[in-house]
Amino acid sequence: MAENNAVNVAVVGATGAVGEKIIEILENRNLPINELKLLSSSRSAGKKITFNNQELTVEEAKPESFDNVNIALFSAGGSISKKLAPEAVKRGAVVVDNTSAYRMDENVPLVVPEVNESDIQSHNGIIANPNCSTIQMVATLKPLQEAFGLSRVIVSTYQAVSGAGNEANKELEEQTRQFLNNEEMTAELLPVKGDEKHFPIAFNALPQIDVFQENGYTFEEMKMINESKKILHAQDLPVAATCVRLPLFTSHAESVYIDVEKNGLKIEDLWNVLKKADGVTLQDDPATQTYPTPLSASNKSDVFVGRVRKDLDNDKGFHLWVVSDNLVKGAALNTIQIAERLIENKWL
Amino acid sequence: MAENNAVNVAVVGATGAVGEKIIEILENRNLPINELKLLSSSRSAGKKITFNNQELTVEEAKPESFDNVNIALFSAGGSISKKLAPEAVKRGAVVVDNTSAYRMDENVPLVVPEVNESDIQSHNGIIANPNCSTIQMVATLKPLQEAFGLSRVIVSTYQAVSGAGNEANKELEEQTRQFLNNEEMTAELLPVKGDEKHFPIAFNALPQIDVFQENGYTFEEMKMINESKKILHAQDLPVAATCVRLPLFTSHAESVYIDVEKNGLKIEDLWNVLKKADGVTLQDDPATQTYPTPLSASNKSDVFVGRVRKDLDNDKGFHLWVVSDNLVKGAALNTIQIAERLIENKWL
Repeated sequence: MAENNAVNVAVVGATGAVGEKIIEILENRNLPINELKLLSSSRSAGKKITFNNQELTVEEAKPESFDNVNIALFSAGGSISKKLAPEAVKRGAVVVDNTSAYRMDENVPLVVPEVNESDIQSHNGIIANPNCSTIQMVATLKPLQEAFGLSRVIVSTYQAVSGAGNEANKELEEQTRQFLNNEEMTAELLPVKGDEKHFPIAFNALPQIDVFQENGYTFEEMKMINESKKILHAQDLPVAATCVRLPLFTSHAESVYIDVEKNGLKIEDLWNVLKKADGVTLQDDPATQTYPTPLSASNKSDVFVGRVRKDLDNDKGFHLWVVSDNLVKGAALNTIQIAERLIENKWL
Repeated sequence: MAENNAVNVAVVGATGAVGEKIIEILENRNLPINELKLLSSSRSAGKKITFNNQELTVEEAKPESFDNVNIALFSAGGSISKKLAPEAVKRGAVVVDNTSAYRMDENVPLVVPEVNESDIQSHNGIIANPNCSTIQMVATLKPLQEAFGLSRVIVSTYQAVSGAGNEANKELEEQTRQFLNNEEMTAELLPVKGDEKHFPIAFNALPQIDVFQENGYTFEEMKMINESKKILHAQDLPVAATCVRLPLFTSHAESVYIDVEKNGLKIEDLWNVLKKADGVTLQDDPATQTYPTPLSASNKSDVFVGRVRKDLDNDKGFHLWVVSDNLVKGAALNTIQIAERLIENKWL
């Protein structure tokens, strides 16, 4: 660390959808950066990226790349994190990893700063950034859990293609043009790059995000279930999830149904808690058609909540409609916030 | 009725999205039609429509239009049904109404033939066709209710714009072109034609279908809740719904979560019931990425079900992914099937 407390930061996966967003957000935050190192696969090495009016050259990520790095932000896929994150730690860096590689490792804290900031301090060199769809849900659930208790969570997601990377955005755009031109749509990537079958996403809804597990759930669904319990420190909380990919470029929406523990709550009781919640913005007024949508939430930092309703048949049941930019709070911003808290709290 | 049992049929709203689909499907069904009368508003009167190689002229719907009509299929909006359905009944026609005007009237049966055909016989001249999103859900729930009992239903919908008519299709297409051309999207219709605010649907998700009620639910959500209980003859069954409009042209999908009454069920138990269910096709094999999507279900007659999963934390909880063409089984086909059962059972 430099004498002025400024840190040397490496971004691994600098040319990907999340990496690009990390660089963009870093320009507008107060993370005290001494040197920024942009790393990628050999394929993307050599690209030039402008950061704070300085032209930086992307370098190939190697173990030696992490010499003198204080904080390394990884968003280059799970296999890269598994290979290089231990090398970064060995060289003294603290890793904030935005892949699923270490999230369920019991020695790795899984953190949404507004929810469980203090978990950061137990890190052993690696802190995991949760899955995008998990982050926005737990940011909303945590204040409600604290105020009223939670006894059940059932979520159905409405997820944007950018969660599958820049290539998925291109596929949606290309298929959309084909459809409007009455051409056959070519599907080569979604729902999952490496999977056997591919289906068009344009004007469609695919109930598969990431690969299927032995139990019939997709990996995305298992991430939401397992990560939510870990972040909320609630291993016994029943969480059920269905994850669906939609023809949206940016921002995930979620229809979240919860059973609270407390009886007799009104919508206003939930509103009052959500209004005060850190990182959460309530947008909820049926009389004026006020509710968040993926387009209205895009490029914003907060998690937006609306359509708060009490179940008409169940005193403890409530509906929430939760929307957030999957590349901002769902990925890049949360990663940076973890790095900021590392420095502020001197937990490096 | 003609001597050969053939009937005179009127289609009210013949130039709308559902009316067009009714005419298309009538050509391929066995409803014995003596004369087909196509009715519309004065605005669309005079249009020519081909039916079974005959050119028919659309006439303005008036009370006298229903003289000598045996079965009148109404899909021209609730206010037209309220005004003209009693006139048709007065003239001896039986009305199958595809609007919300009479659905919750206790003197009007609300029917999905595969679910509650026998309710048809108690009609007093009007039989109501349920809302599109209700039809596909109850078609799936009924056999499960009979086999295992149901104690809770929580649904989040993924609905196509064609449910809002042909104009909504055009709006989606126009906005999509604008977005791809980097132009500002013009929103003049969705989420609800007559409502105050309009939001883009292209590359977006709108958590509002139909107008908001005093209780904060949308009318679409209340339709699903109330109609499902009526059709399933289960006034005490808790049903919770969140309805979302998406940039899909055709077919609604639904993420349905149920609690069954029976303990210890396996996915296979639900599969076995769904495989035998009338009007339902099971498409569920994670190993081969087999599941229904809005595009795969479009222009098909059945209700398709996949992603059947048992809740990992709740022995009685199961997930279903239910997809069907909202204009076919969700509207036109179900209307025609009611008319067919009226004739077959001599319940006219």
